[in-house]
Amino acid sequence: MRKNFGAKPFVYPQPVFIIGTYNADGTPNAMNAAWGGISEVKEITICVDSSHKTAENFVQRGAFTVSMATVDTLVACDYVGIASGNDTPDKIAKTGWHAVKSEFVDAPYFEELPMTLECRVISYDTDSCRLVGEIVNVSIDESVLNENGKLDIYKLQPITVETMSNEYYSVGEKVGDAFRSGLVLR
Amino acid sequence: MRKNFGAKPFVYPQPVFIIGTYNADGTPNAMNAAWGGISEVKEITICVDSSHKTAENFVQRGAFTVSMATVDTLVACDYVGIASGNDTPDKIAKTGWHAVKSEFVDAPYFEELPMTLECRVISYDTDSCRLVGEIVNVSIDESVLNENGKLDIYKLQPITVETMSNEYYSVGEKVGDAFRSGLVLR
Repeated sequence: MRKNFGAKPFVYPQPVFIIGTYNADGTPNAMNAAWGGISEVKEITICVDSSHKTAENFVQRGAFTVSMATVDTLVACDYVGIASGNDTPDKIAKTGWHAVKSEFVDAPYFEELPMTLECRVISYDTDSCRLVGEIVNVSIDESVLNENGKLDIYKLQPITVETMSNEYYSVGEKVGDAFRSGLVLR
Repeated sequence: MRKNFGAKPFVYPQPVFIIGTYNADGTPNAMNAAWGGISEVKEITICVDSSHKTAENFVQRGAFTVSMATVDTLVACDYVGIASGNDTPDKIAKTGWHAVKSEFVDAPYFEELPMTLECRVISYDTDSCRLVGEIVNVSIDESVLNENGKLDIYKLQPITVETMSNEYYSVGEKVGDAFRSGLVLR
């Protein structure tokens, strides 16, 4: 038997993206967004309500970064999703994060968040809240790479948010290889 | 030190969505899609290339379902992402899944996948591959609910796909509560 929950925005797993931008005065800002994902080979789409300071910022500079929230940075990542850059100008100072200007776009990433997509704004529609960004570069700190130079997901420890109960979860164990189905090989 | 990977579609965690549709002759079809996510309170956006049989189907019927791939169904979920409905009309028969018509939209879900978003097509753009769906209902099998009637993520066991190494991972342990940052409460 299935239970019907109505029209709800529930998917699993859902990412926790930290969007980095510069305020007009050059101070860094960040917010937390769970509604979004890859939308093309070099493109990410995220729903960002126009009331956010972040929206004003990426429209002005034409750029933003997207870092993965992690277990180690969970409290601060949660905080930047609650406090607003509109009334808390020292938001990043409170996290203790160190902002670094991206080499590729006019937006900051944060040293404490080891994996970042550096993006240029392709379009932003305030009605639908849809921000579409061109992924110009992905940068990953060497501390979370494995011996083959690829991402080690256990070192990165990205988190996912479960919005029915408002809980964060880590990534678990490897359960299989992708694009190698036994049903095809059989 | 950061390593630059260039313009790549890497985010973590990334979902594994199983899109259910009806073929023109009424047989069920399914495909696996990782590029997408919630885009508004009652809206999901997924990138579906127009070469997929699924794209033809949801355009014709104006509807589709999105189920979460799970650890238990991993091999079949991977299979529907490799085999094409264009040249394998018996794709669903091979998975062993049992298709059930949604109560709400003209598309099937599959008994073996316990959580499903039932969606109407709002728009589909073949150029950008962007499918936008209105979430009409979320249905979840009681077998994966907890005693409070909410989803038990450990019973559902949704998977995530890591596309740098093409591996599937389960969801790990609870690491915190969302929207309750200690930095704000302090």
